Amino acid sequence: MKFCNQCATPLAYGVPPDDNMPRFHCPACLVVHYENPRIITCTLPIWQQQILLCKRAIEPQLGLWTLPGGFMENGETVAEGALRETWEEARSRPTIRQLLAIVDLPQYHQVHMFYLADMPNADCAPTSESSEVALFHPHEIPWDHLAFRTVRAALEHYVEHRDKGPGLPLLETRITPR
Amino acid sequence: MKFCNQCATPLAYGVPPDDNMPRFHCPACLVVHYENPRIITCTLPIWQQQILLCKRAIEPQLGLWTLPGGFMENGETVAEGALRETWEEARSRPTIRQLLAIVDLPQYHQVHMFYLADMPNADCAPTSESSEVALFHPHEIPWDHLAFRTVRAALEHYVEHRDKGPGLPLLETRITPR
Repeated sequence: MKFCNQCATPLAYGVPPDDNMPRFHCPACLVVHYENPRIITCTLPIWQQQILLCKRAIEPQLGLWTLPGGFMENGETVAEGALRETWEEARSRPTIRQLLAIVDLPQYHQVHMFYLADMPNADCAPTSESSEVALFHPHEIPWDHLAFRTVRAALEHYVEHRDKGPGLPLLETRITPR
Repeated sequence: MKFCNQCATPLAYGVPPDDNMPRFHCPACLVVHYENPRIITCTLPIWQQQILLCKRAIEPQLGLWTLPGGFMENGETVAEGALRETWEEARSRPTIRQLLAIVDLPQYHQVHMFYLADMPNADCAPTSESSEVALFHPHEIPWDHLAFRTVRAALEHYVEHRDKGPGLPLLETRITPR
């Protein structure tokens, strides 16, 4: 961030008046340019005890398997964003069952949220973001070819708790730098 | 958003290549300027069946009562942000018990998250953001003088479920425009 997006003046970096953290701010128009964490919203879609995974067709982690998800957009709820991403990446339209996991990645300024979701049928298809989409029984999950540690955490939590009753516990965890 | 914060060129607004939503983007350096929802992270602090509330010393809703909370910052977890805000606004250092509520406000591009938290003692004090801080038994909550509908939703959920313990259900709801 180098220039004010309101008036194009070169930005300053420091603690603004009445604040306690350094921020980019404009010495001309005085606007403070806050930067905040973003939400990655995902589903863990289920069809007859099988889990829908997507093989990534884009970087990062091209060729590895992931759950459908992406950046939450303005104007939608967290759950609506998860369902939108599931359609965009896997051409499936599941129904939300419950919030399954919240995973903090403070080093990346992200919070990842995963919803357990029930597919109405086995319909799914590759997209520009997913070179393959497929249904996996828990013992078939490609653990050595997963794209992200957040996805691994959500899958492990689901597999561990899936038979323990109607509501699954909410996983709240953080991914620490390697 | 009028100018590119990387190169100061006037921004264009439209659907960038390989995207499906209009965004601000730079016709010179091609950077896309994404805008995403922000997280407001809060506590509902408890001391001996009483709830800690803060009377707002700043706009918006100056003079009305709220739970401690504010914008999540880069580099922290959602829960760490809630505890930081609780210190900044009420000079209390509670311990997180559980996530209590997630409230979507898509029209404001916000997601509010509330943690039930236990105070180690009754210590609390006014701050530059809170003209008063006080402990309220549930029947004393100033329902007609609350600052935000999100706070009302979290308080109503807590009061309704507080005796059903040990774990309270997670409230997931959205606030619709009036």
